[in-house]
Amino acid sequence: MNSRDQNSLLVVGSVAFDAIETPHGKIDRTLGGAASYFALAASYFAPVRLVCVVGEDFENHDEQVFADRRINLQGLERVPGKSFFWAGRYSQNMNERTTLATELNVFASFDPKLPDSFRDSAYVFLANIDPTLQRSVLHQTRRKPKLVALDTMNYWIERTPAELRETLKHTQILMINDDETRQITGEHNLLRAAKHIFKMGPSTLVIKRGEHGALMVHNRFLFSVPGFPLEEVHDPTGAGDSFAGGFMGYLASVGRVSDECLKRAMVYGSVLGSFAVERFGVQRLKALTRREINGRAKRFWQLTAFRF
Amino acid sequence: MNSRDQNSLLVVGSVAFDAIETPHGKIDRTLGGAASYFALAASYFAPVRLVCVVGEDFENHDEQVFADRRINLQGLERVPGKSFFWAGRYSQNMNERTTLATELNVFASFDPKLPDSFRDSAYVFLANIDPTLQRSVLHQTRRKPKLVALDTMNYWIERTPAELRETLKHTQILMINDDETRQITGEHNLLRAAKHIFKMGPSTLVIKRGEHGALMVHNRFLFSVPGFPLEEVHDPTGAGDSFAGGFMGYLASVGRVSDECLKRAMVYGSVLGSFAVERFGVQRLKALTRREINGRAKRFWQLTAFRF
Repeated sequence: MNSRDQNSLLVVGSVAFDAIETPHGKIDRTLGGAASYFALAASYFAPVRLVCVVGEDFENHDEQVFADRRINLQGLERVPGKSFFWAGRYSQNMNERTTLATELNVFASFDPKLPDSFRDSAYVFLANIDPTLQRSVLHQTRRKPKLVALDTMNYWIERTPAELRETLKHTQILMINDDETRQITGEHNLLRAAKHIFKMGPSTLVIKRGEHGALMVHNRFLFSVPGFPLEEVHDPTGAGDSFAGGFMGYLASVGRVSDECLKRAMVYGSVLGSFAVERFGVQRLKALTRREINGRAKRFWQLTAFRF
Repeated sequence: MNSRDQNSLLVVGSVAFDAIETPHGKIDRTLGGAASYFALAASYFAPVRLVCVVGEDFENHDEQVFADRRINLQGLERVPGKSFFWAGRYSQNMNERTTLATELNVFASFDPKLPDSFRDSAYVFLANIDPTLQRSVLHQTRRKPKLVALDTMNYWIERTPAELRETLKHTQILMINDDETRQITGEHNLLRAAKHIFKMGPSTLVIKRGEHGALMVHNRFLFSVPGFPLEEVHDPTGAGDSFAGGFMGYLASVGRVSDECLKRAMVYGSVLGSFAVERFGVQRLKALTRREINGRAKRFWQLTAFRF
């Protein structure tokens, strides 16, 4: 067996064009999709292998956004048709989001194919897609990944619960929001819900709570990171995927999954999530600096650290 | 001028009987009211001076609950009539509360009178009552308190905004929830709302966010404490007042208001708030131990501490 890159990080998910309207402005077409936010956020920590499908409308300058970062595009499949398109509008308070359009286009027949060079990936993030496709990704790996993390949504929880259960058996970290946690387990209390999830396979549940931050329920410990108080949130789109990118990117970069590393991953995830919402689309994630990232991690520390 | 007790803590507010229904049970009549929760919580840190009004139905065994702790009852006024009575029911998820009855009774003509021995109090908490009465308490002090903290609610924000503004001029810490913060300032963003509040008098805004914890916006720093993840919340009543009690009690006990002390006060407030909801009414607050309080403070530390 060849030795693999112990820091290799794979993401499989959507790359899309988004039309977004928030109280701070409006943009008709911008690069989006879970895997885009994830890959850009993670790229500040480790090289990223991206598997996705796009249409003929995906142009060179779109591809360049990834190429400018350490994102390997061997798994970017370009097929006839249009790319996934999503349009949404946020309420005045940004607490509510209305989906105005979801045009799956080429994404409707997404069948992720791992290039041979991706099949030994050590860290794997399965963004929110059909759990059957998520499992097919795992089947294509040549070596068991060190860590598999998975996102999902109400659509799959309702319509393909058995497939989701099967995929969860091969997942160490489930990364979802409060509502999804409650829906998947039928349990309102998040700690009790986590116990149900531990029986399904994962040893770690990361609950994303938007402006209220994130909570990790590990079978050995709890860890909480607050939402970062910002004066201006321009566009909440992609915050959760950017969180996942910072989280997994950090873990891949250190190459181990100790309790302390998981806690720091929660912080770096929160850092990237907090940056993502400062500008429209992936704008802010295109050009962060290590200094900015470390500076914000320090501010998270200041926000919560106390002596007693 | 006589030297005053530098750790003296005064609370002025409601002492009531509550009828409470939650998914975990039902209780027809139990000691409640903001000042009760506050005084019991604070009493674990410092002696408390309580100013309130009760009716003829307030019995010796009710009084004994306070007397068993370090709560000075010289300011407990007993008048003809019945005590304030409140009845409420929580939804299955405890996210919503329906008020079933509010019988002000003797509380309708509450006119707080500070016993002479209370008029030099160093720390003052004005629980949620008419802002005109809150100000009258401050007028009765003989020496300027070292610290005045104030709670209020939508009722006063809507009906007596000018009186509230006047009282806020003499307040250092405003302790309210998200919605009240937004309502009082007309600003949705909490950081920008805090800047409005700083112009009104307070130098510190403590935003209570229920299960999402609490955020302190100080004019020099931010500090966040998560909600304590609990498997069983029996009764959310009084959580915010218990938070305020732990917060002010801790500050009174140390006798200074440094940034580090304010952060620890946030933690001890959260500790007492998290205990309060574990049982019905003030049940859990009647018999805590120092060991339990310190143990939970340590768990708050474990929940948020990381090295980077």
